[in-house]
Amino acid sequence: MSALELIDTEYSGNAWKVRLLAGLVGVPLARRTVSIVDGDLEQPWFREVNPFLQVPVLRTREGTWLAESMAILWYLGAGSAYVPDDAAAQARTLQWLSFEQTLHMHNFAQPRLWVHLRKTMSLDDPKVGEWQKNGYVALGMMEAWLAAQPYFGGEHPTVADVALYPYTAMAGEGGYQLTEYPRVQAWLKRIESLPGYQPLLQKDTQ
Amino acid sequence: MSALELIDTEYSGNAWKVRLLAGLVGVPLARRTVSIVDGDLEQPWFREVNPFLQVPVLRTREGTWLAESMAILWYLGAGSAYVPDDAAAQARTLQWLSFEQTLHMHNFAQPRLWVHLRKTMSLDDPKVGEWQKNGYVALGMMEAWLAAQPYFGGEHPTVADVALYPYTAMAGEGGYQLTEYPRVQAWLKRIESLPGYQPLLQKDTQ
Repeated sequence: MSALELIDTEYSGNAWKVRLLAGLVGVPLARRTVSIVDGDLEQPWFREVNPFLQVPVLRTREGTWLAESMAILWYLGAGSAYVPDDAAAQARTLQWLSFEQTLHMHNFAQPRLWVHLRKTMSLDDPKVGEWQKNGYVALGMMEAWLAAQPYFGGEHPTVADVALYPYTAMAGEGGYQLTEYPRVQAWLKRIESLPGYQPLLQKDTQ
Repeated sequence: MSALELIDTEYSGNAWKVRLLAGLVGVPLARRTVSIVDGDLEQPWFREVNPFLQVPVLRTREGTWLAESMAILWYLGAGSAYVPDDAAAQARTLQWLSFEQTLHMHNFAQPRLWVHLRKTMSLDDPKVGEWQKNGYVALGMMEAWLAAQPYFGGEHPTVADVALYPYTAMAGEGGYQLTEYPRVQAWLKRIESLPGYQPLLQKDTQ
């Protein structure tokens, strides 16, 4: 068995999901931080590690490399309450993991990247308007769901909450206002009060 | 316990995934086919069923509605060899389920929709070129993976293969050539020879 090692980048919301879950379930992770700007993801060694050319990627206990944040969350959460046991609860958790990847993340990650981090786009760019339009639809779906249960998997936090947390928490960096989504705001606070919660690592705090 | 009921549309590759798995694992599904063109997904009854406003959606044995094809596959495959037991194999399966949703499907579904089904775009449209460029990258990743094992989950077919099959099998409808991907072609044939395999339902064969 080799040690768990996470390859990530600074500021990556997808990598934050993994560090957050590791903190919540108390699993130690070795970390190696690479730079997208410096071209690390195009190096031959990284192509061997992850042919999808993305971070995060995890070296598992079996010594193989695992890509895709939802797969990494499932692996690290296995055996804890963050990955439910029964098929119906697992499927509900996967519904929200898939929602995050297909209807949610992009609309928050893109304006944050171009407006807040790279500063090559302004908030009044039509592309930002399109992302925000779809992002607010996603927030509306989350608000409606949280009317009936405190977490996306039901009564207890699961990997679905961990996956949805980072980009929702950073929505303001893409110009979003959460004032009309009080249940989403309360859910963010519930996640932040869980024992083992981890904040985003910025470059200067690593 | 209520009966399993699938709401789908004709020609939907995502719905095909679900019918294919149901055939492979021998689970009977009641079906209700709706029409996107006729606006069925915008009706109030459908908004109640699936706030994500997408097909397919499954009424589970517990009587609730489950959205997102990967979640539906996980639910229907639970207890069969199509959803592996151990955490490492589950995570590997999820890696490919996520790949299909984020790096694969879009690049095949979009040219098929606009060029083949709606016929409002031609194969030499720059958008089609962009989808195909990314789609061929995805095919290259699949070809490389299949050099070392016959299926995406490893030695046996899993829900990852079922998810990747429909849009890869229909790649030609979006103008793709699979001649340079012999392992992908052989894998398609392996899926088609599995007992219980189901073809795509066309409107006139329902």
